[in-house]
Amino acid sequence: MAEQVATNITWHDGTVTRQERQDVLKQKGATVWFTGLSGSGKSTIAVALEQVLFQRGHVAYRLDGDNVRMGLNKNLGFSAEDRAENIRRIGEVCKLFADGCVITLSSFISPYREDRDLARQLHVDGEIDFIECFVDCPLDVAEERDPKGLYKKARAGEIKGFTGIDDPYEAPEKAELHIRTDQLSLEESVKAVLDCLQERGLLKG
Amino acid sequence: MAEQVATNITWHDGTVTRQERQDVLKQKGATVWFTGLSGSGKSTIAVALEQVLFQRGHVAYRLDGDNVRMGLNKNLGFSAEDRAENIRRIGEVCKLFADGCVITLSSFISPYREDRDLARQLHVDGEIDFIECFVDCPLDVAEERDPKGLYKKARAGEIKGFTGIDDPYEAPEKAELHIRTDQLSLEESVKAVLDCLQERGLLKG
Repeated sequence: MAEQVATNITWHDGTVTRQERQDVLKQKGATVWFTGLSGSGKSTIAVALEQVLFQRGHVAYRLDGDNVRMGLNKNLGFSAEDRAENIRRIGEVCKLFADGCVITLSSFISPYREDRDLARQLHVDGEIDFIECFVDCPLDVAEERDPKGLYKKARAGEIKGFTGIDDPYEAPEKAELHIRTDQLSLEESVKAVLDCLQERGLLKG
Repeated sequence: MAEQVATNITWHDGTVTRQERQDVLKQKGATVWFTGLSGSGKSTIAVALEQVLFQRGHVAYRLDGDNVRMGLNKNLGFSAEDRAENIRRIGEVCKLFADGCVITLSSFISPYREDRDLARQLHVDGEIDFIECFVDCPLDVAEERDPKGLYKKARAGEIKGFTGIDDPYEAPEKAELHIRTDQLSLEESVKAVLDCLQERGLLKG
């Protein structure tokens, strides 16, 4: 420890430890990976959950199409290769945020099991909690909601390879959370994720 | 505001605002972009600065070769195109962290002005502080330090396109900070960045 009395600037060898981060932030970093059909309610839950976490003095960050597709991943298209790379990069960024002790909320359809498992493995390798949250409702319910009008376009053939219509959604087989948004209220859905975070000891103070 | 007395889970329309984040974290998000020759002292300053920020209850995160090159950017090589993409992705990730209200410390040689200016512009577009910190020392001093033995390999021709040897370093012309590590102590260097953060009103409480 190099102590400098005049300026009160001190440091030790090595980097800030995970424990030091947790002590300051009163939480452990983790990634909640919301996956499900377009219109299933992923972002709605993530947006509300983020607010509840902040109200309680915790720190969360949402990754979604708005801040990733237009930025980090704007040079990716919709080929099979680019879709996999899209999810890979998101998984890596989630890992960085969670390593930084943030509760990271990832909100993407992420329809393929292999891609989600890769994101999970990155976290396992880094000894970081990864909570796969399957946001589930029947296709006809999601299509009825159609918040962005995308199902309508997909049915009309204006969008090709749309998940649930002409591209598969591979449902999780081992998700930590399975939320039926056609059966639960938004409040109940948020509470289910919050309870999971608390049971895992991720939220302190 | 949907208030649920039983569970104390409430939220408002829209997302967590930047002000709400700042109130919880007692800081504003920003990116400190350290740039300079290999061995100039970028990471040494960033590591110490991160510790000092945590000691004071602030939240910072370092991006460097260890956590980026092996993860998000592991599919990039050293062609001119890949080097530019490397810095572009780092700039985008810095922007995400800073948007999440974290003091983000980016520690890469980032030798080309155009690439750094692109990272800056991303932040300007997002109305996020970007502090370019030129970590400067004469080449012979950096080469003398040679902490990773890379200059030796570059001089021996084992590494091609090494910044300062057979690839240019384009020094910043408008950096917010210019730190001469051959003239300042580590403590003085850290204090210079810390003072800059404070003068900009990024650290509260």
